[in-house]
Amino acid sequence: MVDETTVHLEEASVPSVGEGEALVRVRWLSIDPTIRTWMNDVQGYLPPIALGDVVRSAGIGEVVESRSDRYVAGELLFGMTGWQEYVLADEGASAMQKVPAGLDGPLALNVFGITGMTAYFGLFDVGKVAPGDAVVVSGAAGATGSTVGQIAKIAGAGPVVGIAGSSDKCAYVVEELGFDAAVNYKTEDVAQRLRALCPDGIDLYFDNVGGDILDVCLAQLAMRGRVALCGAIASYNDTERPSGPANYRYLITHRGRMEGFIVLDYADRYPEAQAAIAGWLAEGKLLHNEQIVHGLEQTPDALNMLFTGANTGKVVVEL
Amino acid sequence: MVDETTVHLEEASVPSVGEGEALVRVRWLSIDPTIRTWMNDVQGYLPPIALGDVVRSAGIGEVVESRSDRYVAGELLFGMTGWQEYVLADEGASAMQKVPAGLDGPLALNVFGITGMTAYFGLFDVGKVAPGDAVVVSGAAGATGSTVGQIAKIAGAGPVVGIAGSSDKCAYVVEELGFDAAVNYKTEDVAQRLRALCPDGIDLYFDNVGGDILDVCLAQLAMRGRVALCGAIASYNDTERPSGPANYRYLITHRGRMEGFIVLDYADRYPEAQAAIAGWLAEGKLLHNEQIVHGLEQTPDALNMLFTGANTGKVVVEL
Repeated sequence: MVDETTVHLEEASVPSVGEGEALVRVRWLSIDPTIRTWMNDVQGYLPPIALGDVVRSAGIGEVVESRSDRYVAGELLFGMTGWQEYVLADEGASAMQKVPAGLDGPLALNVFGITGMTAYFGLFDVGKVAPGDAVVVSGAAGATGSTVGQIAKIAGAGPVVGIAGSSDKCAYVVEELGFDAAVNYKTEDVAQRLRALCPDGIDLYFDNVGGDILDVCLAQLAMRGRVALCGAIASYNDTERPSGPANYRYLITHRGRMEGFIVLDYADRYPEAQAAIAGWLAEGKLLHNEQIVHGLEQTPDALNMLFTGANTGKVVVEL
Repeated sequence: MVDETTVHLEEASVPSVGEGEALVRVRWLSIDPTIRTWMNDVQGYLPPIALGDVVRSAGIGEVVESRSDRYVAGELLFGMTGWQEYVLADEGASAMQKVPAGLDGPLALNVFGITGMTAYFGLFDVGKVAPGDAVVVSGAAGATGSTVGQIAKIAGAGPVVGIAGSSDKCAYVVEELGFDAAVNYKTEDVAQRLRALCPDGIDLYFDNVGGDILDVCLAQLAMRGRVALCGAIASYNDTERPSGPANYRYLITHRGRMEGFIVLDYADRYPEAQAAIAGWLAEGKLLHNEQIVHGLEQTPDALNMLFTGANTGKVVVEL
């Protein structure tokens, strides 16, 4: 877990704005499990955050001063703001994107942001979700999981089963979000429940957690079942080497496929997903939920919430 | 391992031939690791062999008596003969296929049989092998592995690296079969050697063994690398639950894909593969090697050879 030995708050002067730059006051930070992986000293899909650097993070800020034709004071920008109050946007490597007018910041970070993009491309492109598929998603009450389950239903999949860590979360995804069923992995026998809920096996498991639940789902894959590997939060805080999914061998007998993805690869197709999501929101088919944490100094705790299960929906820090 | 507590030799009378049937004297048995999986009391891609049943096995036999228009005395037939001296072919569920005239029995069971089909479809359809790919294959001196490495070279992949369990086997796949390199997993640091041989990562790992070697290869996958899961002989004889590949998480950061397959699914495309293989044999690009074991009573030991590493090439029992 992140604590005072990991990060600390530092005062620095607001950077001065050079030609072609804009000063952005950060207003919302997107709190994502992947931030925790960047804190390990291993090369992942991005380099680790260097010791002494500002913690890398997506976020949204407001332009307060601009010396670039590209940015206008007062507008909202999305980009890698980091865990800080001010950031400079430029026209090159540190460029930021305009948030469409009228879009609320937390919403832009949730279903219109990385979270929604992850759910959309993970389901359709990696998972190849199809009508009638039995879909299981872990971290079901979290930002990505709650969106995955709803989009799976929209795509005609069913049963759509969520796995979550409390009875409140299970009730939420079924009663509020329209999942067909939910399993509380802390109090129920996940293998037994999934066998009952998906008697013909799991066609698509959208994995946010890894660990034992991945192993259980592998053993229950339907013929030609798919596992879309999105994350492995069950082990991001492990200090010892985690065990692996021994049931990967069911991939052989069941002609299964397990595939990982990083949503950044789909950046040029975000508009396609955003258009679809805008339509589903307008039709009332897709609900979203942001859990707002207030204050930059709360950011480490906000990240920890993702691992203790304290959150429902998308965690956003509002500065 | 298979021993006298697993199988025993039984005498029975030769079955009488009904209308539409042919009596086939079994001449060669195909010895494949998958037979060992059928001996476990678990539902796999085929049901387990029932207690008291003849051991299921592919093989080739000669028609000695026919009461079917489909079969002619003297011709060779391929099918699921089982570990026995005589079997009945019929025109329904127990039909057998003619072995093309002029084709040697052991060769028909090797590169023209399940072994060659597994290498071909595993490489092209599951592994999507492409020119310039760094390909690693385990069980490299075995029937499937030795064919995989050669076909990968024919497809323009390289480096093609074999992993095998003795210096003789390593020398064989490099000097005789034309692999670019080989690693002796019993005496060398596999991770270190693979990093040196595939400095840009592994584009395709063709996995015949599972276990630690799978885990090592996962950690060295190139971006968008693939793992074609063919088998897991490292653990077929395990009596305890094997550990899983903890490094499956590299599939996320590296956008990797791990996919299992059963070659029987490609049966309607065997002629395509057989035609290609016939061409490569004729051109001298593809070598084959059958290790003949004599006598039905040696069959259990012949199967064990696959797990002790005593074989090079395809193990065939000649009755």
